[in-house]
Amino acid sequence: MAHALRLARRGLGNVWPNPAVGCVLVRAGRVVGRGWTQPGGRPHAEPVALDQAAGLARGATAYVTLEPCAHHGRTPPCAEALARAGIARCVTALTDPDPRVAGQGHAILRAAGIEVTEDVLADRARDLQAGFLSRITRGRPFVTLKLATSFDGRIATALGESRWITGPAARAHVHALRLQHDAIMVGGGTARADLPALNVRGFGPVRQPVRIVVSSRPLPDLPVEGPDHGPLWQMSGRIDAILSDIAGRGITRLFCEGGGQLAASLLEAGAVDQLAGYGAGVVLGADGRPAVGSLPLPRLADAPRFRLVETRSIGPDLFHRWMRD
Amino acid sequence: MAHALRLARRGLGNVWPNPAVGCVLVRAGRVVGRGWTQPGGRPHAEPVALDQAAGLARGATAYVTLEPCAHHGRTPPCAEALARAGIARCVTALTDPDPRVAGQGHAILRAAGIEVTEDVLADRARDLQAGFLSRITRGRPFVTLKLATSFDGRIATALGESRWITGPAARAHVHALRLQHDAIMVGGGTARADLPALNVRGFGPVRQPVRIVVSSRPLPDLPVEGPDHGPLWQMSGRIDAILSDIAGRGITRLFCEGGGQLAASLLEAGAVDQLAGYGAGVVLGADGRPAVGSLPLPRLADAPRFRLVETRSIGPDLFHRWMRD
Repeated sequence: MAHALRLARRGLGNVWPNPAVGCVLVRAGRVVGRGWTQPGGRPHAEPVALDQAAGLARGATAYVTLEPCAHHGRTPPCAEALARAGIARCVTALTDPDPRVAGQGHAILRAAGIEVTEDVLADRARDLQAGFLSRITRGRPFVTLKLATSFDGRIATALGESRWITGPAARAHVHALRLQHDAIMVGGGTARADLPALNVRGFGPVRQPVRIVVSSRPLPDLPVEGPDHGPLWQMSGRIDAILSDIAGRGITRLFCEGGGQLAASLLEAGAVDQLAGYGAGVVLGADGRPAVGSLPLPRLADAPRFRLVETRSIGPDLFHRWMRD
Repeated sequence: MAHALRLARRGLGNVWPNPAVGCVLVRAGRVVGRGWTQPGGRPHAEPVALDQAAGLARGATAYVTLEPCAHHGRTPPCAEALARAGIARCVTALTDPDPRVAGQGHAILRAAGIEVTEDVLADRARDLQAGFLSRITRGRPFVTLKLATSFDGRIATALGESRWITGPAARAHVHALRLQHDAIMVGGGTARADLPALNVRGFGPVRQPVRIVVSSRPLPDLPVEGPDHGPLWQMSGRIDAILSDIAGRGITRLFCEGGGQLAASLLEAGAVDQLAGYGAGVVLGADGRPAVGSLPLPRLADAPRFRLVETRSIGPDLFHRWMRD
């Protein structure tokens, strides 16, 4: 299952609106097939692994990071494909909360006489599937808020100079994080001030994330959609309505890169699931631009709290990642 | 020498105005004496190690983290004591920049026929001796600026609530850092708002650091000097004059705990050697109190830069330490 989870991870940011799934087929102690959800969400992980295994799938154990699908969508149900291939056992990490599946994939397998073991490495699978699970169960994407700040939490000098607070290694790391998200969001002020490219660079040809600018005012000229830039969506209104709209369009993982007002709106709405902080060894002082706008906090106990899950150096900078409790 | 450096470290914060020195005597591959500068700065490391070795010092090699002293102060010169004990060889990490020593310790040893090897693990010794070296060569103490902030660099809510942003483990770690400094400094605003104890707790009976409050206005009632609280010095004026005055009184390592204006003054004067950051997984927003006051920064390139030397979690919080380049 750990192997299947690693395969599944390759699909993050690349397979929306579908979940990023991994599948490993093992027969007599040998891996006979491996698959993961392909770019755009099809084919699913299971048929890729079954194709690879061909006749060797018969009698094999399938390790799948999510319950195999049970519905006829653009592809036939994976649960039926596994049964037809004659696997003996299926081990899954999570039940698919999608109402079109929701246990029916497991039921199809069991009806075919296949032994089913559920909830193996479920916690790790839930982390991996946080975006898909959020879209299905909460009606909004999993949201990462990224901030690149000085030691004292500033994102620019008083005069607005922000290029570059962090170094090239941290900026390359940001591209790796963008790659694992379906869409990148910025506020209108940031879009107008920085004319950001909001794309993934340095990883060869990839499915570029959707660019979302939250603003009710006209946008500056941003690059048109193409191989190097994803679709551009301008949105405005209440932040929770925007997130619901985005989820409705299929986005499972959203990467917000500021500015401060948008960050504050997301935090105030309780919609930030992960904080990705890049800290530079520079001090800008109280006149520097704040990373997060005003938050109404009558008491310290009302402030949103996050749990540290990772900290390390990236080039000369500090990287620290926190998850909502 | 690595052993001697570890012994020397025990004296940090405890031996001012003297340097924290370690000494290991080795004869025929066996350690026959170990010593480090004792609380208050006397006796020095070498006589402690010689006492322990007694007759076994004859023919031994002495590893000393700093050139043995050559001047008659309150104790006789250590270089003469080592020579009298009949050691065969002396290995040192640093030449003492104190003009009363400055190579004369080594000269005394050589004149006595002792083989001298200098500059062994000199970089590590310089780090350890940063405070003493700074006092002698720059006329000011080594300065650590500590900030405990939210994810977005705030030290309190808009209403001033700051207890507690970081958790008990981080606060205990602060006491361990205080213990390694000779004095703790805060601004007048912090002293009046928080009535801070500015002492070391949780380490049994220790030499309490000097408490320095930078303010020209009357101070609130702070605890009187005693076993649990060091001397209280009120100082005011230009920050570089204050630092010079502090060094003149013998302080080698200064720990500044804010507030924002004092932090900004130290940074603007280029007087911060080390940043010790504690980060909590909480976001307070732009109305929260800034960690560092205004800094005049025409350009980002003018901002003070630091190099990341350590990052790790402490309880639920992030600890990150940076050194001035």
